[in-house]
Formats: sequence, structure tokens, C-alpha cells
Amino acid sequence: MAALAPVLDALDKNLDESLDRLFDLVRIKSISTDPAFKDECRKAAEWLVEDLKGIGFEASLRETPGHPMVVAHHDGPAGSPHVLFYGHYDVQPVDPLELWHDDPFTPAIKTGETGSKIITGRGTADDKGQLMTFVEACRAYKQVHGALPCRVSILFEGEEESGSPSLKPFLDANADELKADFAMVCDTGMWDAETPAICVGLRGLVGQEVTIHAANRDLHSGEFGGAAANPIRILARVLADIHDENGRITIPGFYDGVEETPSQILKSWEGLGETAETFLGPIGLSLPAGEKGRSVLEMVWARPTAEFNGISGGYEGKGFKTVIAAQASAKVSFRLVHKQDPKKIEAAFQEFVRARIPADCSAEFHPHGGSPAIQLSYDSPFLIKAKAALTDEWNKDALTLAMGGSIPIVGDFQKFLGMESLMIGFGLSDDRIHSPNEKYELSSFHKGQRSWARVLDALTK
Amino acid sequence: MAALAPVLDALDKNLDESLDRLFDLVRIKSISTDPAFKDECRKAAEWLVEDLKGIGFEASLRETPGHPMVVAHHDGPAGSPHVLFYGHYDVQPVDPLELWHDDPFTPAIKTGETGSKIITGRGTADDKGQLMTFVEACRAYKQVHGALPCRVSILFEGEEESGSPSLKPFLDANADELKADFAMVCDTGMWDAETPAICVGLRGLVGQEVTIHAANRDLHSGEFGGAAANPIRILARVLADIHDENGRITIPGFYDGVEETPSQILKSWEGLGETAETFLGPIGLSLPAGEKGRSVLEMVWARPTAEFNGISGGYEGKGFKTVIAAQASAKVSFRLVHKQDPKKIEAAFQEFVRARIPADCSAEFHPHGGSPAIQLSYDSPFLIKAKAALTDEWNKDALTLAMGGSIPIVGDFQKFLGMESLMIGFGLSDDRIHSPNEKYELSSFHKGQRSWARVLDALTK
Repeated sequence: MAALAPVLDALDKNLDESLDRLFDLVRIKSISTDPAFKDECRKAAEWLVEDLKGIGFEASLRETPGHPMVVAHHDGPAGSPHVLFYGHYDVQPVDPLELWHDDPFTPAIKTGETGSKIITGRGTADDKGQLMTFVEACRAYKQVHGALPCRVSILFEGEEESGSPSLKPFLDANADELKADFAMVCDTGMWDAETPAICVGLRGLVGQEVTIHAANRDLHSGEFGGAAANPIRILARVLADIHDENGRITIPGFYDGVEETPSQILKSWEGLGETAETFLGPIGLSLPAGEKGRSVLEMVWARPTAEFNGISGGYEGKGFKTVIAAQASAKVSFRLVHKQDPKKIEAAFQEFVRARIPADCSAEFHPHGGSPAIQLSYDSPFLIKAKAALTDEWNKDALTLAMGGSIPIVGDFQKFLGMESLMIGFGLSDDRIHSPNEKYELSSFHKGQRSWARVLDALTK
Repeated sequence: MAALAPVLDALDKNLDESLDRLFDLVRIKSISTDPAFKDECRKAAEWLVEDLKGIGFEASLRETPGHPMVVAHHDGPAGSPHVLFYGHYDVQPVDPLELWHDDPFTPAIKTGETGSKIITGRGTADDKGQLMTFVEACRAYKQVHGALPCRVSILFEGEEESGSPSLKPFLDANADELKADFAMVCDTGMWDAETPAICVGLRGLVGQEVTIHAANRDLHSGEFGGAAANPIRILARVLADIHDENGRITIPGFYDGVEETPSQILKSWEGLGETAETFLGPIGLSLPAGEKGRSVLEMVWARPTAEFNGISGGYEGKGFKTVIAAQASAKVSFRLVHKQDPKKIEAAFQEFVRARIPADCSAEFHPHGGSPAIQLSYDSPFLIKAKAALTDEWNKDALTLAMGGSIPIVGDFQKFLGMESLMIGFGLSDDRIHSPNEKYELSSFHKGQRSWARVLDALTK
């Protein structure tokens, strides 16, 4: 068995070089949802293929109808487990650009608001910094021992931030190649800057764009105001109807499959000391906006939501225009829990909207992906080993948590490859992912690499 | 007294030259609401000053804190009335540009959808084409007789499409110079392509932009969704609450000062044969969206409204972004009738919004102008003379109507200069003002010039 200590030493010694590599990757503007950045997405994939080849992986770029996948394999000692590591090289759009303190694609080391060293730039936390922690751990193993402690496959996709349209067909077509004993997914976070965590529950997601069409052209509000349908008014009515006065969602059948969280679990979450003040205070809020009578952690970890992610219609420029628009649109997403069915939620939402549209207007829908929620088993041996490894590295008990976000890949691995996933990551809640001024803690990047080295070591024991 | 017939002949003969002049003016991109077009607004004002000087007016450009005014004077025979003619040289923005069949600032003569000749381009109907009908009538009088039949002053402003912020101070400061026996305002329309009309009722307008502020930054909807306030949700609730299920506006005190239209007036409007089908059919709609139990003409001529002219927030680009925005905005306007007080409506709206904002969020307001409604007297001698002149030109009885739009200048002339206004114009309801593919009928432009010549002639009798 390959010794762990020299691998950890190598990671400490090579931190600067690993930062150079991360910076190279962050500089590539791989915004997957915007077609203007298609070439940049490919460039990020090519960069990863070359880097993995340099380590000694058999790595290749795989075409899809969208952005390419990166697949890599490396063998391990006979009898060792086979793990599939997943990450994504694409990033969120950067608007509003004027709110960034620095160019989002010019990474830098800075001192953060809490005094710690941070790595700034779009994708540093979500997910380039995270995936590179694993790559660096593999690199150090190879450098020190010329081998990995177990058999490792890697899958990096480029469409995670845009609904992963190519992922399911790719998993389906390459199931034999990608199937491993279990997956490791690095898209999650720590409880806080000192406390590592493994995530066992994830909310699902349904994304829908709805456009209300009214008149066949924009109208003057003096000429037609009062008589002609206003699509913004119709849209506002639809959106306002989705929540009742207690924050509950009114779409018929929406709560089908939602289970009440066991009281002992709720109690353990209460023990974490998170309150409305501690959770919402840092973002300038104080009043939980979800279902009355539930804690903020329950709201984000174990309750479904309807959120309006974008809205537009009519004149949005400077000044004023007395126009009645021909159409108005909203991007709506639902976070799902437990056994809620994405397809049924999508259909129920569309029915709900149509029931509120006047007969001379119409509603048009564009789907933006859907995935059910995930609830993993608490007693997997891999989970127990990984928890111990994280506890060793951080010198603090690793926690078992749920998460409010969606990582559709975890459900897809279950469905297409019959694999469970270990969700381990080193992000923090103030990393501003999806927002201006995204950052990743330097300690997350460094100790994250060391953590993966320990986890790989633990899995072989 | 100067003979009318040769003036009308001159207008017929000079139609091509008058079109060349209009085209020159339309080519100037005088979009007043967008600061990027500031120089173009000045260019339009300078063009008008030069043109009026060429006719023989004493014309000048007058600075304001915003876009300049054009003021011109020409004397008339002793004892003749003194009229002040008002128009505006600024135009609406042109977005969405992709819906225009041709460049909005490259005017052309085309055959319209109904087979008539039309002049296409932004501002052809609102208001450059309209104001040039009057200028051309003056030019022809000067050409034929070397004089005007009455004393004429002219005021062209450049901020009509952006709330006229400089107008009131300008009228106040120049009241002595601008005061005439009455004003003539050319910003209105005909009943149909054959039937001229004079407008006696105008709705007022209050414009408000409201921005809801929630978190201090954009949030990831997975991380915070369900717990954090979503400003789009709050805004949708506010907007949805403004109308009840019968189309009535629920803002407390909103209907103070609104009078029921006399039944004989409603009956005369019914006689015009306008129905929901004829009014809404051309714009692709069929169901009146206003207060239940009222006709479409009453809705747009004699009832107040609340319209949402623009809405924006969150991610509006292509694809999807699971973000909870820090803020969301709407541009809201109210059309006022009779004695509704703009200041009270503005205050009542702000109070209505604030009552619906959670305590940890806030609402910010930007005013975009306000003016009360206008109801002119039906028995002014100038009105009666002008109706007769229009009837002569069009060979069809001129109608006395109300209008759904706002022409704040008419109220300002009453307030600052103690003048009533004759509202005469030659626009049609399908001119697509404020929309892509704005046009002005060639017959409106030609017979409009002849109409003004006749009106000027009639006023001296």
C-alpha cells in the first residue's frame, strides 16, 4: 500500500504550481448557457484532456450535440475499488458585470472579507477549483508513487450550468465504460470554513420559461390602455398566485411525494445553531420567505420551492415608454424534494398558467431541464470511510448534511449507472457562486487536495 | 383678406418638396429618453429653427436643462387672433429593432396594408409629420401672399416622449412671450382615414418606476431558495393586487375625482360603431381587459387605468440561471380622467406598494412625470370655426371626440398661460406610434397641410 504522508507533503510543496494550473483553467470563459462562448467551452475541455494526459490518464474529449465531455481512466492495484470522479468545467454567466470588483476571468489571490486568503474569479468555487482539488491529489500520487491507490475514472461535463442536455444520452451510451463501484461528486460544500461535510440529500430542479403573448404588436398605452390585455399584468397575476399568504405553493398536486422530515433529523439540524439571523443576515435579510413555521435549514434542505429567476417585458431601458408590450416572460424554477416527480410538476405548472390566461392571449413554454431530488443511504461503507478521512484532515468531525441545490448528475448516476455518489466538496456558503465576485478559499483548495488524497487512501483500506 | 384657394393650390404643387423636408427631419434620430441621442435631439431643433427662419419666422433655439426648445414668431394682420402652435420634434425609442421592416430613420413612401400610400419611419406620425403639416401651411401662405392670415407663434419641444421635464419651467419663465389667444396642438388623430376630428377630452398620466430591493446581492436559488425574499415574487404580488377580478383598480382613493360620463355622450360614442371586435381585432385581441360592463371607447376615453409598461429582474438572457435577484423593477403608469389628482395618485400608489413589502426589503420610486386629465369646453368659437374648416377640406362632418392618451402640454397651457387648446391632428389608430413600423398616411400629410391652411383662414373670419 502506497504511503499517504509523502503525498500530502508533495501537495504542500506544489501548491503554487497547482494554483498556476487553476488560474489557467479559470481564464477560459466557459459559459455554457450562452452560445457566444461555445469555443471557450471546448477550450476548457481540451485543456483538461491535456492536463490529465500529462498526469498519466488515458484521457479524451468526447463530442456531444452540445459542449464536449472529458473522459479519463487510470488503473489501480488489483482488488482496489473503482471510483468515478465527476465535475464540470462550465461556469455561470457573469452579468451584471459592473458589480464585479475585478475581471471575472482574471483570477487572483486576495485577502477576503473575513481575513482569509481567497482565490477570486468566475468558476473558482463552481466548479473549476473544486474539480482541480481531485486532479491535484491524483497528480501528487503519481509523482510520489508512480501509481494511484485505486482505479480512477473521471467525467467532466460542460453543460452543468445549462441543464445538462447531453448528459443523460452520454451516460446511457457509455454506461459500460463509466460504471464504477461508486461515484465521487465534488460540487458540494463544507459546513463552515473549519468543518468538512458530506452531503446525503439534494433537492431536484424543474426549470421553465413561460412567455405570455397578448396583442400582435406593442401598443401605445394611451391609445389602447384599459381595453387591451397587458401581458405583464397577466404574468404578474400568474406568478402572484403561485404562493399563498403562508408561503405555501398553490399549484394543485405540487406537494405530492413530499415527506415530512423525521423529527430527530430536524433536531440535529437545530443543533447546528443556524437561525434566520445567521443564515439571512449576511445577505442583508432577516425574515424567512418560505413556509411559515419551518426553520431556514428545513426550508432550503428539505422543502420544495417555486422561485422566479428572471422576468422581462415591455420597455426596460432608461427613462419611460408608455407602451403595452406584446409579450412578457418569466424564468421559473422549482426545487424538488423526496419523491416529487419533475414531469408531473412541469405539467401541473403549465396547467396552472393556462388556467389564468385570457382566451385571446396565449402562453408558450420552454423547458430548462428537470431532475428529481436525491436522498442517499446513511450507512454506505464508502461514506463511513470518507467521513473518517475528512475528519483526519480537518481535525474536526465531518458532518452529514443535506443541500438546497440540485446536482442532477447524482440522480443520473443512480438511474443510468446504478451507482451511488459520495458528495464531498470544499465550497463555503459565502463563495458567491452564480453571483458577481465568486471566490474559493485558498484553504479549501489546499486542504481539499489533501482531503482527496486521504479519501483515496481510506477507500483502499 | 388673403385668398385661400391659391394657398391650397400651392400646397398641392409643392407636395414633393414638402416630403423632402419631412424626410430630412425624420432622418434625425431625436430619441429624447435615451441620453445617447442627445446630439441628435439638438440637431432636430436646429433643423427646425433654420427651416422656420427660411419661411420668415423670427425663430430661435432656446436652451433648457434637457433638450432645447424651438420658439418662433410671425406677425399677422392687425386685429387677427394670435395662435400658438405646439408640436414636438423628439421621438420614441425604436426597440425592438428587429421587428422593423426597414430602418426606422430611413423614411420612404410605400403602399400600406390597406392599399393607401404611407410615409414610413419613426416619428412620421408622432409627431414630425404632424407638426410639418402646419409648417407647410404657413410656408404656402408666405409663398403666395407674403404674409400669414393671423399672428402665429410656434413652440416645438424635444422632451414630449420623456415626460417633458423642462416644459413647465420654460412656460413659466416665458409666459409673456408665449401667451396667445389660444393654442393649437397637433398631437391627435382623425376618427378614421376619411373623417377629421377635434379632441376635447384627454386622459392625464402619472408615470412611476418602482424597484424592489431584497438581498444585498444576487443569490443561488439552490442555496437560498425558499428562505430568502425574492424581489420578483414581491413585485408580482404588488402588481397583481392593483386590479381586482372585475378590472377595477384597488388602490385606495384611486377613483376620487372620477365622474361617470353622461349617458348622452356614451350614446353618441356607441353610435360610432366601435365594438370590442373592431377595436381589438386589428391588434389580435378580442376581450376587453378593462372594467367589466363598459364599452371599449369608454375604457380608453373616459376611464382611468393602471398599466405596466415594463418589468425586469433576475436573469433575462438566453438559457437559464438559477439565481434569486437582489432587485426587480417595474415601470407603471396611470391614465387619469376628469378631476383625478396626479400627486394624490402617486402618493396612494407608493403607499399601496410599501404596504406589500416585507420588513427586510425596500421599495424605491422614480417619478416619470404627471399631468391631470383635460376636458375642454364644447362651445368655444375657435372650436366651432375649426370644425367647419375641417368639414370643408374632408367633405365629411368633423367629429368631437375624446382621446385615451395624454398630451400634458394642453394642461400646462391652461395652467401657465391661461389658454385653451384646439387639438387637431391627422394621425390614424393604425399608425403604430410608439411601435415598430410607425407610418403616417400620405393623405394625412397632404390634406393635413390643406386643413391647417383652411383653419388659419377660418379663424380670421
